[in-house]
Parts: sequence; C-alpha cells; structure tokens
Amino acid sequence: MLAAARTAFAERGFDGASIRVIAAAAGVDPALVHHYFGSKDKLFLAAIEAPADPEELLPQALAGGRDELGANVVRLLLQVWDGPARTAGLALVRSAVNNEWTARLLREFLVAKVLRRVVGTLGLPKAEGEARGSLVASQLVGVVMARYVLQLEPLASASPEELVAAIGPTVQRYLTGDIVLPGGAATAL
Amino acid sequence: MLAAARTAFAERGFDGASIRVIAAAAGVDPALVHHYFGSKDKLFLAAIEAPADPEELLPQALAGGRDELGANVVRLLLQVWDGPARTAGLALVRSAVNNEWTARLLREFLVAKVLRRVVGTLGLPKAEGEARGSLVASQLVGVVMARYVLQLEPLASASPEELVAAIGPTVQRYLTGDIVLPGGAATAL
Repeated sequence: MLAAARTAFAERGFDGASIRVIAAAAGVDPALVHHYFGSKDKLFLAAIEAPADPEELLPQALAGGRDELGANVVRLLLQVWDGPARTAGLALVRSAVNNEWTARLLREFLVAKVLRRVVGTLGLPKAEGEARGSLVASQLVGVVMARYVLQLEPLASASPEELVAAIGPTVQRYLTGDIVLPGGAATAL
Repeated sequence: MLAAARTAFAERGFDGASIRVIAAAAGVDPALVHHYFGSKDKLFLAAIEAPADPEELLPQALAGGRDELGANVVRLLLQVWDGPARTAGLALVRSAVNNEWTARLLREFLVAKVLRRVVGTLGLPKAEGEARGSLVASQLVGVVMARYVLQLEPLASASPEELVAAIGPTVQRYLTGDIVLPGGAATAL
C-alpha cells in the first residue's frame, strides 16, 4: 500500500493522487486504506517517512502576527531539526538527493504540507504564494544543508535564537517583502 | 595520489593538509605532486572533482562594488549551475549528502575556495567573516537544492535575473548588513 502510495504521489503529486487510485494500484479496497491510515494526509506522511507532521506543528508557528511569521518559521524548523526528528529528516534529504522520485515526494511534502500552509496565512493569489513559498524553501532547505549536512561553522553550532535573528528576516522578506518574484508572478502586497 | 589527497583534505582540512603530507601518504616525492597538479589548489580541485575553479570565476564577480557583491555572487552561482558544470556539481552534492568525508571536502571547498574569497573582499575580522560566510552558504546551497535538486517551481524555471533580484539582497544583507551573527561573532561594520 505504501509502495503504491509513493508511486502515485511521485507521479501525480499530492493533489493529483487520490486514495481511490492508490487503493486500485495496491489491489485493495479504498476503505482499507482509510482504515489503516485515516486520511490521505496521514498516508502521505507515512509514504515519505516524514520526520514530523506539519499539521501538528505548524499551527503554533502560524498563530503569531504576520510580522513574526519569518522568525516563527525558522524557529520551528530548528526545533524540529535540533530534536529527534533529525535522523529521519536527514534520511529523507539523502534519499531525495539520490533518487528523482523521492525528490518529487519531498517537493510535494514541502509544497503541499508546509509552504502552502505558511503562505496560506497571508491570503495571497496562488501564483504569488507559490513564488514566495519557493523562495522560503530555498532558505530553509539551505539552513538544513549548511547546519546538519555540511556542518558549516559557526552556523552549525550557533544557538537557535541567533539563527532566528539572522535568518528570520530573510524568510520574512520572502513572505511579505516588496520583491521581484521568480516566474514573473505579480506582487499583491 | 588523489585518494591520498582526499583523505588528507577531509581529515585535516584544506589549510592543514600539505603537499608534503599527501605525497608521503601516497608514497611519492612531493615534486611529483607538483609536477602533476601544479599547486595545492589544483590538487584540491582535482581531488573533489570540483565542477568549476573559483580562482578563475570569482575575480569577475568580486570586481564590482561592495554593494553589488550579493547580486554578483548569486549571478555567478546561477551562471555556473545553469551551465555544463551542473552535472559535476550535482554529483558532488549527492556524494556529500551520502558520505561524511565528501561532506567535509565540500565544506572545505566552500569555506577555503569560495566564502573566504568572497568575504575577503570586505576586510572583516576572521570570526565575523566566517559567520557571514556561513550565512551566505546557507542561502546559496539552498538555491542549488531548490532549483536543481528539488526543482521547486517557480524557482526552478525562473530566469537568472529574477533570482538575482529576489535573492541577491539576502546575500548582500548576510555580507554587509547590520545583523546578529551566529556563534556570537561581533560585527565590525
């Protein structure tokens, strides 16, 4: 079931892959998928072996004001990666770098489960939200690479709050700043 | 000779590994290493199979004014990665994510061959230069991951100049902005 789910999510993306399609590919009844995983969300997280569930973690980071969004997102990223989820997170990054299909799954995870939720709090047009979200990802994924994979000093051993102070404004600018957006998306802000 | 060089650079770092030590580990005369590779720089680039030689490329990016440094560094990154060097670059990133020793070599490459040169143009104290350099790396490595590995849209298909406009100011702020530096480095600017 998980193998069928991985294939479907990688080929069709999170939005395009339905539980019905996944159940058919696995040769089981859709009700069985619901029974085991509860929802498409949970099935997706299980299929990519996600290190953490954004549904549980993001609401707190998004509850602050719009001007604290950048700092709160960086703080949450560091909380997750400085904690026990790091091992699973690193395994997911390694796998994504080696395998195009896992890269697609990780991209779907970032887009559908993280970035869309974060930019969703700003009420932006779709194209602008995607453009800002991809810029945010470029900084967040880079922090993961620099701190946990390459272990570049002094970033690798800096305190979370130092990094929130240094990098939070970058994420804030990507989310709400007056910037040129990639892909020619117009700015509504 | 290259295997001995990889081991020495990974264990001792670029600065700590001498041609003498590498030659001894390979069981050859140091003159032979000089004969084949010309310099420690060239030996290092060969050992890590570097996709491009920063010595040749960086001077042009660093020749502009101090206020254009961020944009010029992002522009150079995209020129290299949008070109034929991408294949070797992706191989190096894949290898670094899978293998701790290659991760150390890639870190040495970034620190000794790229970041030190870039922040070197600003005449900063060593600790501050390293702190700013590691922040710059967190954004540049993230652009590589988002655009070329995860292929996140619209960042993946955006024009280089759109990304220079969106991301250049981030790199500029990390280089010359009034920011909290990771690792407690003081700001001299």
